[in-house]
Amino acid sequence: MAMRFSQQAAQNLAAIREKKPLVHNITNSVVMNFTANAILAMGALPVMADAENEVEEIVAVADALVLNIGTLTEGRIGSMIKAAQKASEQRTPIVFDPVGVGATRFRTETAKNIIDTTPISVIRGNASEILSLRHKASQPKGVASAHTVDEATPTAKIIAKELNTIVAITGHVDMVTDGLREIRISNGHPLMSYLTGTGCASSAAIGAFLAVENDALRATAMALAFFGIAGEAASKNASAPGTFMGCLIDALYAITPEDLRRGCRIDLS
Amino acid sequence: MAMRFSQQAAQNLAAIREKKPLVHNITNSVVMNFTANAILAMGALPVMADAENEVEEIVAVADALVLNIGTLTEGRIGSMIKAAQKASEQRTPIVFDPVGVGATRFRTETAKNIIDTTPISVIRGNASEILSLRHKASQPKGVASAHTVDEATPTAKIIAKELNTIVAITGHVDMVTDGLREIRISNGHPLMSYLTGTGCASSAAIGAFLAVENDALRATAMALAFFGIAGEAASKNASAPGTFMGCLIDALYAITPEDLRRGCRIDLS
Amino acid sequence: MAMRFSQQAAQNLAAIREKKPLVHNITNSVVMNFTANAILAMGALPVMADAENEVEEIVAVADALVLNIGTLTEGRIGSMIKAAQKASEQRTPIVFDPVGVGATRFRTETAKNIIDTTPISVIRGNASEILSLRHKASQPKGVASAHTVDEATPTAKIIAKELNTIVAITGHVDMVTDGLREIRISNGHPLMSYLTGTGCASSAAIGAFLAVENDALRATAMALAFFGIAGEAASKNASAPGTFMGCLIDALYAITPEDLRRGCRIDLS
Repeated sequence: MAMRFSQQAAQNLAAIREKKPLVHNITNSVVMNFTANAILAMGALPVMADAENEVEEIVAVADALVLNIGTLTEGRIGSMIKAAQKASEQRTPIVFDPVGVGATRFRTETAKNIIDTTPISVIRGNASEILSLRHKASQPKGVASAHTVDEATPTAKIIAKELNTIVAITGHVDMVTDGLREIRISNGHPLMSYLTGTGCASSAAIGAFLAVENDALRATAMALAFFGIAGEAASKNASAPGTFMGCLIDALYAITPEDLRRGCRIDLS
Repeated sequence: MAMRFSQQAAQNLAAIREKKPLVHNITNSVVMNFTANAILAMGALPVMADAENEVEEIVAVADALVLNIGTLTEGRIGSMIKAAQKASEQRTPIVFDPVGVGATRFRTETAKNIIDTTPISVIRGNASEILSLRHKASQPKGVASAHTVDEATPTAKIIAKELNTIVAITGHVDMVTDGLREIRISNGHPLMSYLTGTGCASSAAIGAFLAVENDALRATAMALAFFGIAGEAASKNASAPGTFMGCLIDALYAITPEDLRRGCRIDLS
Repeated sequence: MAMRFSQQAAQNLAAIREKKPLVHNITNSVVMNFTANAILAMGALPVMADAENEVEEIVAVADALVLNIGTLTEGRIGSMIKAAQKASEQRTPIVFDPVGVGATRFRTETAKNIIDTTPISVIRGNASEILSLRHKASQPKGVASAHTVDEATPTAKIIAKELNTIVAITGHVDMVTDGLREIRISNGHPLMSYLTGTGCASSAAIGAFLAVENDALRATAMALAFFGIAGEAASKNASAPGTFMGCLIDALYAITPEDLRRGCRIDLS
């Protein structure tokens, strides 16, 4: 099974580079540049349009939509809802990244509203964010997580079942679930937590894999393995977060399907 | 002629570094940081102010204005129109970068409105964008081009003649025209297309050259040669887009007038 | 005294890395990514939320608030005022970075309004910006300074006294004053002026030091010494601004308390 998973991951990476899926991101101002460069490097095409009066036309030609609520504004909420409606009409996969949910009522209400009204394919967040989608008291410190992946796993499974979606919790070891199955991915490097936007960019990578792989559970795990392997490769050329940033983008570009096949450290249970 | 062109390009680069022209950019959120750093590195001064209630005062002291419609908002349109009016009153050169025009009605209408009402010195875009300024069906994939420079050249010449402006199409080989003459620039490197904002930053470089060179056709070609040579130099120190980004900024800083004189690969026809 | 200062600086850097203070930045679109990465690298936690309907909840759990008026909008002004009120209720230190004040009436009025109505702990700007807080005619060229630190020092002292705050002028040699005492910091490197956002990031570093050090005069000087030493360290691995950017972030991460203790070049008068 693990063997088949990694082979399929490799094929999907090759497919991304051949088909160059268009990943539409409505995301926060902090990570726009890094996210666009990460998508380009891995071989897909980014579009970052977020104005309410154009997102429908953009998403109409996109292969995946990624919604991210960092630096949220009323305008961006309207754009997210319009884009999500169009995406769901066209059965375009939607990734939701609830950055900082639980930190403010504004984010919590927006996040809950989005997941209640939109058919999300995948929700990806850190442990505090996933817990905050259901509970009140997780108290994240800004956008950093105050909880472990294991603590949030039962909540992730409940959300996945109720919403008929995939939930991914990223952290030291990532966990992806459809409510029944759990996949754990051990790829990654500690320097990634010293760089803003690695979570957001991994959500965008999920979007690219969803564009070529119908099984959303596996697509998500493959994207996280790929992104984690890129972090491992970057750490061989950089020992601090500033140069690590460039090396991570380099690795997203340079990693071959064969590197991905060999590098996957996953646990399918 | 080619000899004189490259000597003049070298003199203009020296003039930019001596006079440090102020380049006012009203641009998209994705590339603001990269554009400001590119302008600083080449020896000019950037200002990125985009609020409607201050752009007129900013442009009043600027040496060039660069308008870029990526991540367009109603607010930014108002700012662009105000800034452009002030710039044209003061005969400050204006560069227009119609990012993603053709992808949505909002962008297409905004772009057409801007070029119809403002005396633009230079329009720079990829082939799809230039075609979309006149035709309906170019269908860009997000912000990437679906057409070649040669396909868009006749349209570029028509636009240049009608609007009495310079049109530059950037791609594998760049083409700059005033409607009659064509200059082709072969400088550049394929990694530039894996980095978001290289087009936008080359538009800003055009702004800097316009601030020191009255012949807008030649200023544009010089800026694109300079930017392309920087890409070539960067590729000697980086083989993937993440580290290439830093090396490209380094090259904009390090390239001497003499490097520019020697490196120009232009075809004046 | 200089000895005690550098020892205390070293202890404060160690405290930042242990306590990981949350630094809330309401800042401009150009430098958001760089600022967040600088804060993460030095060992603190950034949050960049700037929507009016969530800044109060964010600042309520923050250890410092940094207000920066680059790319100012009406919306951000409202957010800054709400956040500053909450911060002052909770006695959370506030750093104010008046980017480009004097360049437009909008910025000048906003800056004066903020310093008149808010108990600011520290104001940091370049010489032109500090002069523009009191005088009309300093005419900055965009956001670059047209004046020396010495020219602006008397004005800085007056502002510090009148507002009962700390004023820092950064430049070739930085000067920090409480209106009576002056501390001069000679750390830094000329490449820092070729990189957008170094001033903004140094303001964020001041926020982090204020979170662990009650003496705001000394906290400010320590942060500027730390940031300048990072610039010096970066210059050993990079000779141009593009790669310097990554190396500066690396240095903020890699500099030890002992490096800081040894590297401080300060003059306490």
